[in-house]
Amino acid sequence: MSTELDVGLPSVRQLQTLIQDGSEVEVKVITNDLLVGKIRWQDAFCLCLLDHYDQPTVIWKQAIVFLKPKA
Amino acid sequence: MSTELDVGLPSVRQLQTLIQDGSEVEVKVITNDLLVGKIRWQDAFCLCLLDHYDQPTVIWKQAIVFLKPKA
Amino acid sequence: MSTELDVGLPSVRQLQTLIQDGSEVEVKVITNDLLVGKIRWQDAFCLCLLDHYDQPTVIWKQAIVFLKPKA
Amino acid sequence: MSTELDVGLPSVRQLQTLIQDGSEVEVKVITNDLLVGKIRWQDAFCLCLLDHYDQPTVIWKQAIVFLKPKA
Amino acid sequence: MSTELDVGLPSVRQLQTLIQDGSEVEVKVITNDLLVGKIRWQDAFCLCLLDHYDQPTVIWKQAIVFLKPKA
Amino acid sequence: MSTELDVGLPSVRQLQTLIQDGSEVEVKVITNDLLVGKIRWQDAFCLCLLDHYDQPTVIWKQAIVFLKPKA
Repeated sequence: MSTELDVGLPSVRQLQTLIQDGSEVEVKVITNDLLVGKIRWQDAFCLCLLDHYDQPTVIWKQAIVFLKPKA
Repeated sequence: MSTELDVGLPSVRQLQTLIQDGSEVEVKVITNDLLVGKIRWQDAFCLCLLDHYDQPTVIWKQAIVFLKPKA
Repeated sequence: MSTELDVGLPSVRQLQTLIQDGSEVEVKVITNDLLVGKIRWQDAFCLCLLDHYDQPTVIWKQAIVFLKPKA
Repeated sequence: MSTELDVGLPSVRQLQTLIQDGSEVEVKVITNDLLVGKIRWQDAFCLCLLDHYDQPTVIWKQAIVFLKPKA
Repeated sequence: MSTELDVGLPSVRQLQTLIQDGSEVEVKVITNDLLVGKIRWQDAFCLCLLDHYDQPTVIWKQAIVFLKPKA
Repeated sequence: MSTELDVGLPSVRQLQTLIQDGSEVEVKVITNDLLVGKIRWQDAFCLCLLDHYDQPTVIWKQAIVFLKPKA
């Protein structure tokens, strides 16, 4: 995997849209935790989620199972 | 892995057919969740599933165990 | 990983033989499910298993632990 | 994956900042363990965490789910 | 990962020695199964284990945790 | 991933130091097993651990979560 983010990919663009819109998302990871927050940034390896107290959590993409807008 | 989707591959073509036919599928992921919906798009890293309320879920391919037409 | 299937590899050839012989196999995946069926095709990322009703299941190779002829 | 650390990436820079600041972090790994300590160094594959007794633990990045400042 | 097996690597050579000696080994995989048998062959992705009835099991290396001579 | 070991990396050097010093280490793997022993060698894919009876266990790096000096 290149360390460059391919912004032409639908999955990368979808995350960029969620970042710009400041939408709340739910991220399910392989430990079965469900993380909730707003995405601040993404790169090729990680994304950063801000919780309600603006505390950042860096999530490794390799550990993400799925991601969706908060219900 | 390249970020380009190799549309010559049977697995990629099978997903494309499911997208075009709007077929319902079941996706088993490594957390043992079974996600159900219609595939809207795929790229090299992810596919997007729409549930009955047209809510999108982005699933990382790395976390998929198997996928089949809904029984 | 290239998207090309290296047919010189023993593991790839073994699967090809199982496809041609129409042998029933058991596939253990990382969620601990044991899938049973005949392999219809394989590519670099996936293989397709047909169950007794000829329903196809696309299994991601990344999620396979082992595979053996059905006992 | 290259063995070179791409210091232009936000995730790499964020870890570098945490190293320089000597901040305590929580690292959740795929076995569900939560490791706590200060990051001493990172490279392309691993990061090294120092606990309260300055004992080093080398953590493989492939096994990291998320990382955040200690609450 | 290349599909070529680098026979200069200690891990590859160790498996080759176990194949030539016909030694019994225990293979622990990520589902926590412990598979026992003699290694018949390896390639870049898999190894093949023969049980006491000479039935072959193809194990994906990606799913192997550790391997040791049978106690 | 190249099959060559990049000896300039801190993580690779740290393991080399532990090999040279004959230090006892604890290795936590993704099945949650904690393996204890002295590291005899490492390559790009594996490391070899010797237990108290000098029995070798080949551990795949892909399955390692963390590693630390035995407490």
